[in-house]
Amino acid sequence: MSVVFWTNRRGARPEAPRLRPRVAPTGLAKVDFTELVPEPVPFLGQAAYIQLEFFEGLAKAVATAPTLPSKEGLSAAAGVALRKHHSLIAELRRLGVEPDDVMAPFAPATDRFRQASAGADWYELLLGIHVTAGMLDGYFSRLAEGLPVELGSRVRAILGEEGAAVVLESELRAAINADPTLADRLALWGRALVGDTLLIARSALRASEAPGTAGADEVEPVFTELIVDHTRRMDALGLTA
Amino acid sequence: MSVVFWTNRRGARPEAPRLRPRVAPTGLAKVDFTELVPEPVPFLGQAAYIQLEFFEGLAKAVATAPTLPSKEGLSAAAGVALRKHHSLIAELRRLGVEPDDVMAPFAPATDRFRQASAGADWYELLLGIHVTAGMLDGYFSRLAEGLPVELGSRVRAILGEEGAAVVLESELRAAINADPTLADRLALWGRALVGDTLLIARSALRASEAPGTAGADEVEPVFTELIVDHTRRMDALGLTA
Repeated sequence: MSVVFWTNRRGARPEAPRLRPRVAPTGLAKVDFTELVPEPVPFLGQAAYIQLEFFEGLAKAVATAPTLPSKEGLSAAAGVALRKHHSLIAELRRLGVEPDDVMAPFAPATDRFRQASAGADWYELLLGIHVTAGMLDGYFSRLAEGLPVELGSRVRAILGEEGAAVVLESELRAAINADPTLADRLALWGRALVGDTLLIARSALRASEAPGTAGADEVEPVFTELIVDHTRRMDALGLTA
Repeated sequence: MSVVFWTNRRGARPEAPRLRPRVAPTGLAKVDFTELVPEPVPFLGQAAYIQLEFFEGLAKAVATAPTLPSKEGLSAAAGVALRKHHSLIAELRRLGVEPDDVMAPFAPATDRFRQASAGADWYELLLGIHVTAGMLDGYFSRLAEGLPVELGSRVRAILGEEGAAVVLESELRAAINADPTLADRLALWGRALVGDTLLIARSALRASEAPGTAGADEVEPVFTELIVDHTRRMDALGLTA
Protein backbone atom coordinates (compact mmCIF):
# COMPACT_ATOMS: atom_id res chain seq x y z
CA MET A 1 0.00 0.00 0.00
CA SER A 2 2.68 2.42 0.96
CA VAL A 3 4.45 1.59 -2.27
CA VAL A 4 1.49 2.69 -4.34
CA PHE A 5 1.13 6.05 -2.67
CA TRP A 6 4.79 6.40 -2.59
CA THR A 7 5.97 5.62 -6.07
CA ASN A 8 3.26 7.92 -7.43
CA ARG A 9 5.28 10.87 -6.49
CA ARG A 10 8.67 9.90 -7.70
CA GLY A 11 9.56 11.95 -10.70
CA ALA A 12 11.52 14.88 -11.94
CA ARG A 13 12.83 17.31 -9.36
CA PRO A 14 10.60 20.39 -9.27
CA GLU A 15 12.12 23.72 -10.20
CA ALA A 16 11.09 25.29 -6.93
CA PRO A 17 9.17 24.45 -3.78
CA ARG A 18 5.49 24.15 -4.53
CA LEU A 19 2.51 23.88 -2.29
CA ARG A 20 0.24 21.56 -4.22
CA PRO A 21 1.17 17.97 -3.59
CA ARG A 22 1.82 15.79 -6.59
CA VAL A 23 -0.74 13.19 -5.62
CA ALA A 24 -3.30 11.67 -7.94
CA PRO A 25 -6.71 13.15 -7.06
CA THR A 26 -8.19 9.66 -6.91
CA GLY A 27 -5.86 8.93 -4.02
CA LEU A 28 -7.44 11.69 -1.98
CA ALA A 29 -10.65 9.97 -0.85
CA LYS A 30 -11.49 11.65 2.43
CA VAL A 31 -11.67 9.46 5.49
CA ASP A 32 -13.89 10.32 8.39
CA PHE A 33 -11.52 9.77 11.29
CA THR A 34 -14.39 9.77 13.76
CA GLU A 35 -15.38 6.39 12.32
CA LEU A 36 -12.20 4.99 13.80
CA VAL A 37 -12.60 4.41 17.49
CA PRO A 38 -9.20 4.01 19.12
CA GLU A 39 -8.97 2.37 22.52
CA PRO A 40 -7.80 5.29 24.68
CA VAL A 41 -5.25 3.42 26.79
CA PRO A 42 -3.08 1.82 24.09
CA PHE A 43 -3.54 4.88 21.90
CA LEU A 44 -2.14 7.14 24.62
CA GLY A 45 0.59 4.65 25.51
CA GLN A 46 1.89 4.44 21.97
CA ALA A 47 1.59 8.18 21.37
CA ALA A 48 3.43 8.92 24.64
CA TYR A 49 6.25 6.52 23.91
CA ILE A 50 6.68 7.91 20.41
CA GLN A 51 7.07 11.41 21.89
CA LEU A 52 9.73 10.08 24.24
CA GLU A 53 11.61 8.78 21.22
CA PHE A 54 11.29 12.12 19.45
CA PHE A 55 12.65 13.72 22.59
CA GLU A 56 15.63 11.37 22.60
CA GLY A 57 16.33 12.14 18.96
CA LEU A 58 16.11 15.88 19.58
CA ALA A 59 18.32 15.62 22.66
CA LYS A 60 20.92 13.84 20.52
CA ALA A 61 20.58 16.67 18.01
CA VAL A 62 21.18 19.18 20.83
CA ALA A 63 24.26 17.32 22.05
CA THR A 64 25.78 17.11 18.56
CA ALA A 65 24.72 20.54 17.21
CA PRO A 66 27.54 22.28 15.33
CA THR A 67 26.83 25.75 16.76
CA LEU A 68 25.46 27.23 19.95
CA PRO A 69 22.46 28.92 18.28
CA SER A 70 21.48 25.55 16.75
CA LYS A 71 21.92 23.86 20.11
CA GLU A 72 19.76 26.50 21.72
CA GLY A 73 16.96 26.26 19.17
CA LEU A 74 16.92 22.49 19.28
CA SER A 75 16.84 22.50 23.07
CA ALA A 76 13.52 24.33 22.81
CA ALA A 77 12.29 21.72 20.31
CA ALA A 78 13.36 18.94 22.68
CA GLY A 79 11.39 20.68 25.41
CA VAL A 80 8.26 20.61 23.25
CA ALA A 81 8.56 16.85 22.63
CA LEU A 82 9.18 16.24 26.32
CA ARG A 83 6.12 18.29 27.27
CA LYS A 84 3.98 16.29 24.84
CA HIS A 85 5.31 13.08 26.35
CA HIS A 86 4.63 14.15 29.93
CA SER A 87 1.18 15.52 29.09
CA LEU A 88 0.17 12.23 27.45
CA ILE A 89 1.55 10.36 30.47
CA ALA A 90 -0.64 12.57 32.66
CA GLU A 91 -3.69 11.55 30.59
CA LEU A 92 -2.84 7.88 31.21
CA ARG A 93 -2.58 8.50 34.95
CA ARG A 94 -5.95 10.23 34.79
CA LEU A 95 -7.37 7.01 33.37
CA GLY A 96 -5.97 5.18 36.38
CA VAL A 97 -3.32 3.16 34.59
CA GLU A 98 0.43 2.92 35.11
CA PRO A 99 2.06 4.60 32.09
CA ASP A 100 5.14 2.35 32.07
CA ASP A 101 3.00 -0.77 31.78
CA VAL A 102 1.00 0.70 28.94
CA MET A 103 4.03 1.99 27.02
CA ALA A 104 6.16 -1.13 27.43
CA PRO A 105 4.63 -3.17 24.57
CA PHE A 106 5.35 -0.33 22.16
CA ALA A 107 8.97 0.11 23.19
CA PRO A 108 10.75 -2.48 21.00
CA ALA A 109 9.19 -1.44 17.66
CA THR A 110 9.48 2.27 18.50
CA ASP A 111 13.12 1.92 19.56
CA ARG A 112 13.88 0.17 16.27
CA PHE A 113 12.01 2.92 14.44
CA ARG A 114 14.10 5.61 16.10
CA GLN A 115 17.33 3.83 15.28
CA ALA A 116 16.20 3.36 11.69
CA SER A 117 15.37 7.06 11.38
CA ALA A 118 18.46 8.43 13.14
CA GLY A 119 20.39 8.80 9.89
CA ALA A 120 24.09 8.94 9.13
CA ASP A 121 24.82 12.46 10.37
CA TRP A 122 23.34 15.48 12.10
CA TYR A 123 21.39 16.65 9.03
CA GLU A 124 19.81 13.25 8.47
CA LEU A 125 19.01 13.07 12.18
CA LEU A 126 17.18 16.41 11.91
CA LEU A 127 15.30 15.43 8.77
CA GLY A 128 14.46 12.07 10.34
CA ILE A 129 12.78 13.77 13.28
CA HIS A 130 11.14 16.43 11.11
CA VAL A 131 9.61 13.91 8.72
CA THR A 132 8.58 11.22 11.18
CA ALA A 133 7.32 13.56 13.91
CA GLY A 134 5.49 15.62 11.31
CA MET A 135 3.68 12.61 9.90
CA LEU A 136 2.96 10.87 13.20
CA ASP A 137 1.87 13.94 15.17
CA GLY A 138 -0.58 14.73 12.41
CA TYR A 139 -1.73 11.15 12.22
CA PHE A 140 -2.26 10.67 15.95
CA SER A 141 -4.03 14.03 16.13
CA ARG A 142 -6.46 12.89 13.51
CA LEU A 143 -6.94 9.46 15.07
CA ALA A 144 -7.72 11.33 18.30
CA GLU A 145 -10.92 12.56 16.66
CA GLY A 146 -12.33 9.12 17.42
CA LEU A 147 -11.57 9.33 21.15
CA PRO A 148 -14.19 10.46 23.70
CA VAL A 149 -14.75 14.12 22.90
CA GLU A 150 -13.02 15.82 25.83
CA LEU A 151 -10.06 13.46 25.89
CA GLY A 152 -9.75 13.79 22.13
CA SER A 153 -9.64 17.54 22.23
CA ARG A 154 -7.04 17.55 25.01
CA VAL A 155 -4.89 15.11 23.05
CA ARG A 156 -5.15 17.23 19.91
CA ALA A 157 -4.11 20.29 21.93
CA ILE A 158 -1.13 18.38 23.34
CA LEU A 159 0.05 17.07 19.99
CA GLY A 160 -0.66 20.37 18.27
CA GLU A 161 1.92 22.36 20.26
CA GLU A 162 4.01 24.15 17.68
CA GLY A 163 7.67 24.81 17.91
CA ALA A 164 9.72 21.78 17.02
CA ALA A 165 8.82 21.74 13.32
CA VAL A 166 9.66 25.44 12.91
CA VAL A 167 13.12 24.95 14.42
CA LEU A 168 13.86 21.82 12.39
CA GLU A 169 12.67 23.36 9.15
CA SER A 170 14.75 26.48 9.65
CA GLU A 171 17.89 24.49 10.55
CA LEU A 172 17.45 22.21 7.54
CA ARG A 173 16.73 25.08 5.18
CA ALA A 174 19.84 26.93 6.33
CA ALA A 175 21.93 23.78 5.92
CA ILE A 176 20.66 23.13 2.39
CA ASN A 177 21.25 26.74 1.41
CA ALA A 178 24.78 26.58 2.75
CA ASP A 179 25.54 23.31 0.99
CA PRO A 180 23.24 22.59 -1.97
CA THR A 181 24.75 19.12 -2.42
CA LEU A 182 22.84 18.16 0.72
CA ALA A 183 19.54 18.43 -1.12
CA ASP A 184 19.81 15.20 -3.12
CA ARG A 185 21.02 13.17 -0.19
CA LEU A 186 18.29 14.52 2.07
CA ALA A 187 15.61 13.98 -0.58
CA LEU A 188 16.61 10.32 -0.79
CA TRP A 189 16.68 10.06 2.98
CA GLY A 190 13.23 11.63 3.28
CA ARG A 191 11.87 8.98 0.92
CA ALA A 192 13.52 6.19 2.86
CA LEU A 193 11.80 7.33 6.05
CA VAL A 194 8.27 7.02 4.75
CA GLY A 195 7.97 3.24 4.74
CA ASP A 196 8.96 2.82 8.38
CA THR A 197 6.73 5.68 9.45
CA LEU A 198 3.73 4.12 7.72
CA LEU A 199 4.42 0.83 9.49
CA ILE A 200 4.27 2.61 12.85
CA ALA A 201 1.08 4.37 11.78
CA ARG A 202 -0.45 1.08 10.73
CA SER A 203 0.51 -0.56 14.01
CA ALA A 204 -1.33 2.24 15.80
CA LEU A 205 -4.51 1.22 14.07
CA ARG A 206 -4.03 -2.39 15.06
CA ALA A 207 -3.11 -1.54 18.64
CA SER A 208 -5.93 0.79 19.41
CA GLU A 209 -8.87 -0.49 17.38
CA ALA A 210 -11.85 -1.30 19.50
CA PRO A 211 -13.38 -4.67 18.55
CA GLY A 212 -15.92 -4.40 15.78
CA THR A 213 -14.60 -1.15 14.31
CA ALA A 214 -13.04 -0.76 10.92
CA GLY A 215 -9.95 -2.93 10.44
CA ALA A 216 -6.63 -1.69 9.16
CA ASP A 217 -7.36 -3.06 5.71
CA GLU A 218 -10.47 -0.92 5.38
CA VAL A 219 -8.76 2.32 6.23
CA GLU A 220 -5.91 2.38 3.77
CA PRO A 221 -6.99 5.77 2.44
CA VAL A 222 -6.18 7.19 5.86
CA PHE A 223 -2.57 6.99 4.88
CA THR A 224 -3.10 9.18 1.86
CA GLU A 225 -3.29 12.25 4.07
CA LEU A 226 -0.07 11.23 5.75
CA ILE A 227 1.64 11.16 2.38
CA VAL A 228 0.15 14.47 1.31
CA ASP A 229 1.46 16.07 4.50
CA HIS A 230 4.84 14.51 3.93
CA THR A 231 5.01 15.88 0.40
CA ARG A 232 4.15 19.37 1.62
CA ARG A 233 6.83 19.14 4.27
CA MET A 234 9.50 18.07 1.80
CA ASP A 235 8.37 20.69 -0.74
CA ALA A 236 8.76 23.37 1.90
CA LEU A 237 12.42 22.40 2.11
CA GLY A 238 12.78 22.35 -1.66
CA LEU A 239 13.24 18.58 -1.56
CA THR A 240 11.62 16.09 -3.92
CA ALA A 241 9.36 13.89 -1.83
CA MET B 1 42.75 24.64 47.86
CA SER B 2 40.48 21.93 46.67
CA VAL B 3 43.07 19.40 47.76
CA VAL B 4 43.01 20.61 51.33
CA PHE B 5 39.26 20.41 51.74
CA TRP B 6 39.20 17.24 49.86
CA THR B 7 41.83 15.09 51.42
CA ASN B 8 40.43 15.96 54.84
CA ARG B 9 37.60 13.61 54.28
CA ARG B 10 39.32 10.61 52.85
CA GLY B 11 39.24 7.88 55.40
CA ALA B 12 37.57 4.70 56.52
CA ARG B 13 34.23 3.84 54.99
CA PRO B 14 31.47 4.69 57.50
CA GLU B 15 29.27 1.88 58.75
CA ALA B 16 26.11 3.63 57.63
CA PRO B 17 25.00 6.87 56.02
CA ARG B 18 25.44 9.74 58.42
CA LEU B 19 24.23 13.25 58.27
CA ARG B 20 27.05 15.16 59.90
CA PRO B 21 29.80 15.95 57.44
CA ARG B 22 33.27 14.85 58.40
CA VAL B 23 34.78 18.29 57.94
CA ALA B 24 37.12 19.99 60.35
CA PRO B 25 35.14 22.68 62.19
CA THR B 26 37.89 25.22 61.47
CA GLY B 27 37.11 24.77 57.77
CA LEU B 28 33.57 25.94 58.30
CA ALA B 29 34.10 29.71 58.52
CA LYS B 30 30.84 31.18 57.26
CA VAL B 31 30.99 33.36 54.20
CA ASP B 32 28.53 36.13 53.62
CA PHE B 33 27.63 35.54 49.99
CA THR B 34 26.07 38.96 49.71
CA GLU B 35 29.59 40.37 49.91
CA LEU B 36 30.25 38.82 46.53
CA VAL B 37 28.73 40.87 43.78
CA PRO B 38 28.50 38.82 40.59
CA GLU B 39 28.09 40.60 37.28
CA PRO B 40 24.56 39.51 36.28
CA VAL B 41 25.21 38.87 32.58
CA PRO B 42 28.18 36.48 32.75
CA PHE B 43 26.74 34.92 35.89
CA LEU B 44 23.50 34.07 34.09
CA GLY B 45 25.33 33.00 30.93
CA GLN B 46 27.52 30.51 32.74
CA ALA B 47 24.66 29.23 34.91
CA ALA B 48 22.43 28.79 31.83
CA TYR B 49 25.08 26.93 29.86
CA ILE B 50 25.81 24.64 32.79
CA GLN B 51 22.11 23.72 32.96
CA LEU B 52 22.18 22.91 29.24
CA GLU B 53 25.05 20.51 29.93
CA PHE B 54 23.15 18.90 32.79
CA PHE B 55 20.24 18.52 30.42
CA GLU B 56 22.46 16.82 27.84
CA GLY B 57 23.81 14.46 30.47
CA LEU B 58 20.32 13.61 31.69
CA ALA B 59 19.06 13.12 28.14
CA LYS B 60 21.91 10.66 27.59
CA ALA B 61 20.86 8.91 30.79
CA VAL B 62 17.28 8.72 29.44
CA ALA B 63 18.43 7.26 26.13
CA THR B 64 20.60 4.61 27.80
CA ALA B 65 18.36 3.77 30.76
CA PRO B 66 18.12 0.02 31.37
CA THR B 67 14.40 0.01 32.16
CA LEU B 68 11.34 1.97 31.14
CA PRO B 69 10.56 3.23 34.67
CA SER B 70 14.12 4.58 34.93
CA LYS B 71 13.80 6.18 31.52
CA GLU B 72 10.54 7.76 32.57
CA GLY B 73 11.87 9.13 35.86
CA LEU B 74 14.98 10.52 34.22
CA SER B 75 12.94 12.17 31.48
CA ALA B 76 11.27 14.23 34.21
CA ALA B 77 14.70 15.11 35.62
CA ALA B 78 15.86 16.15 32.15
CA GLY B 79 12.78 18.35 31.91
CA VAL B 80 13.73 20.12 35.14
CA ALA B 81 17.25 20.90 33.87
CA LEU B 82 15.86 22.13 30.58
CA ARG B 83 13.38 24.40 32.35
CA LYS B 84 16.19 25.85 34.45
CA HIS B 85 18.19 26.48 31.30
CA HIS B 86 15.32 28.17 29.47
CA SER B 87 14.34 30.25 32.51
CA LEU B 88 17.90 31.55 32.87
CA ILE B 89 17.97 32.30 29.14
CA ALA B 90 14.76 34.28 29.62
CA GLU B 91 16.49 36.34 32.34
CA LEU B 92 19.30 37.15 29.92
CA ARG B 93 16.79 38.27 27.28
CA ARG B 94 15.17 40.43 29.92
CA LEU B 95 18.52 42.16 30.38
CA GLY B 96 18.55 42.87 26.64
CA VAL B 97 21.44 40.58 25.71
CA GLU B 98 21.67 37.72 23.23
CA PRO B 99 22.01 34.52 25.29
CA ASP B 100 24.15 32.69 22.72
CA ASP B 101 26.75 35.46 22.77
CA VAL B 102 26.86 35.44 26.54
CA MET B 103 27.06 31.66 26.87
CA ALA B 104 29.64 31.10 24.14
CA PRO B 105 32.75 31.92 26.21
CA PHE B 106 31.72 29.32 28.78
CA ALA B 107 31.08 26.55 26.28
CA PRO B 108 34.58 25.03 25.88
CA ALA B 109 35.35 24.60 29.58
CA THR B 110 31.83 23.43 30.36
CA ASP B 111 31.84 20.92 27.50
CA ARG B 112 35.12 19.50 28.81
CA PHE B 113 33.63 19.39 32.28
CA ARG B 114 30.65 17.38 31.06
CA GLN B 115 32.87 14.94 29.21
CA ALA B 116 35.07 14.57 32.26
CA SER B 117 32.06 13.87 34.48
CA ALA B 118 30.20 11.52 32.09
CA GLY B 119 31.79 8.41 33.61
CA ALA B 120 32.36 4.94 32.25
CA ASP B 121 28.80 3.61 32.39
CA TRP B 122 25.23 4.56 33.18
CA TYR B 123 25.73 4.52 36.96
CA GLU B 124 28.76 6.78 36.81
CA LEU B 125 26.87 9.06 34.44
CA LEU B 126 24.06 9.34 36.98
CA LEU B 127 26.40 9.96 39.91
CA GLY B 128 28.33 12.47 37.79
CA ILE B 129 25.19 14.52 37.23
CA HIS B 130 23.96 14.10 40.80
CA VAL B 131 27.24 15.25 42.33
CA THR B 132 28.12 18.07 39.95
CA ALA B 133 24.59 19.46 39.59
CA GLY B 134 24.07 19.21 43.33
CA MET B 135 27.22 21.18 44.08
CA LEU B 136 26.87 23.76 41.32
CA ASP B 137 23.15 24.45 41.72
CA GLY B 138 23.75 25.09 45.40
CA TYR B 139 26.78 27.20 44.66
CA PHE B 140 25.16 29.38 42.00
CA SER B 141 22.09 29.78 44.21
CA ARG B 142 24.25 31.13 46.95
CA LEU B 143 26.26 33.36 44.64
CA ALA B 144 22.90 34.71 43.45
CA GLU B 145 22.48 36.30 46.87
CA GLY B 146 24.86 39.00 45.64
CA LEU B 147 22.74 39.83 42.57
CA PRO B 148 20.23 42.70 42.57
CA VAL B 149 17.53 41.58 44.99
CA GLU B 150 14.68 40.74 42.60
CA LEU B 151 16.87 39.09 39.99
CA GLY B 152 18.63 37.16 42.72
CA SER B 153 15.43 35.82 44.17
CA ARG B 154 14.13 34.78 40.74
CA VAL B 155 17.43 33.00 40.02
CA ARG B 156 17.29 31.18 43.35
CA ALA B 157 13.72 30.09 42.59
CA ILE B 158 14.81 28.82 39.15
CA LEU B 159 17.81 26.89 40.46
CA GLY B 160 15.89 25.64 43.47
CA GLU B 161 13.37 23.62 41.45
CA GLU B 162 13.41 20.16 42.99
CA GLY B 163 13.01 16.94 41.14
CA ALA B 164 16.20 15.89 39.44
CA ALA B 165 18.13 15.12 42.63
CA VAL B 166 15.31 12.98 44.01
CA VAL B 167 15.19 10.87 40.85
CA LEU B 168 18.97 10.47 40.65
CA GLU B 169 19.31 9.59 44.31
CA SER B 170 16.58 6.99 44.14
CA GLU B 171 18.03 5.39 40.97
CA LEU B 172 21.52 5.30 42.48
CA ARG B 173 20.32 3.94 45.78
CA ALA B 174 18.39 1.16 44.06
CA ALA B 175 21.43 0.31 41.93
CA ILE B 176 23.76 0.14 44.93
CA ASN B 177 21.29 -2.01 46.84
CA ALA B 178 20.99 -4.37 43.91
CA ASP B 179 24.76 -4.60 43.44
CA PRO B 180 26.76 -3.65 46.53
CA THR B 181 30.05 -3.92 44.60
CA LEU B 182 29.00 -0.67 42.91
CA ALA B 183 29.51 1.25 46.16
CA ASP B 184 33.31 1.30 46.16
CA ARG B 185 33.55 2.18 42.51
CA LEU B 186 30.99 4.98 42.85
CA ALA B 187 32.64 6.31 46.01
CA LEU B 188 35.91 6.64 44.11
CA TRP B 189 34.13 8.24 41.19
CA GLY B 190 32.37 10.72 43.47
CA ARG B 191 35.74 11.79 44.82
CA ALA B 192 37.19 12.18 41.36
CA LEU B 193 34.39 14.56 40.40
CA VAL B 194 35.05 17.11 43.10
CA GLY B 195 38.21 18.67 41.71
CA ASP B 196 36.71 19.47 38.31
CA THR B 197 33.55 20.82 39.91
CA LEU B 198 35.54 23.16 42.13
CA LEU B 199 37.41 24.46 39.08
CA ILE B 200 34.11 25.36 37.44
CA ALA B 201 32.94 27.00 40.65
CA ARG B 202 36.14 28.98 40.89
CA SER B 203 35.85 30.11 37.26
CA ALA B 204 32.39 31.44 38.09
CA LEU B 205 33.92 33.76 40.65
CA ARG B 206 36.46 35.01 38.17
CA ALA B 207 33.90 35.43 35.39
CA SER B 208 31.29 37.30 37.31
CA GLU B 209 33.20 39.39 39.81
CA ALA B 210 32.50 43.05 39.50
CA PRO B 211 35.70 45.16 39.63
CA GLY B 212 36.72 46.06 43.15
CA THR B 213 34.89 43.24 44.89
CA ALA B 214 36.52 40.38 46.71
CA GLY B 215 38.85 38.37 44.50
CA ALA B 216 38.80 34.61 44.16
CA ASP B 217 41.75 34.27 46.51
CA GLU B 218 39.86 35.98 49.30
CA VAL B 219 36.83 33.76 49.15
CA GLU B 220 38.33 30.31 49.43
CA PRO B 221 36.12 29.46 52.40
CA VAL B 222 33.16 29.72 50.04
CA PHE B 223 34.13 26.31 48.77
CA THR B 224 33.87 24.76 52.18
CA GLU B 225 30.09 24.80 51.95
CA LEU B 226 30.30 23.11 48.57
CA ILE B 227 32.28 20.29 50.09
CA VAL B 228 29.96 19.96 53.05
CA ASP B 229 27.00 19.63 50.68
CA HIS B 230 28.91 17.08 48.66
CA THR B 231 29.66 15.01 51.73
CA ARG B 232 26.01 15.00 52.76
CA ARG B 233 24.98 13.95 49.27
CA MET B 234 27.43 11.04 49.22
CA ASP B 235 26.50 10.04 52.77
CA ALA B 236 22.84 9.88 51.75
CA LEU B 237 23.86 7.22 49.23
CA GLY B 238 25.94 5.35 51.80
CA LEU B 239 29.10 6.33 49.92
CA THR B 240 32.33 7.58 51.48
CA ALA B 241 32.87 11.10 50.25
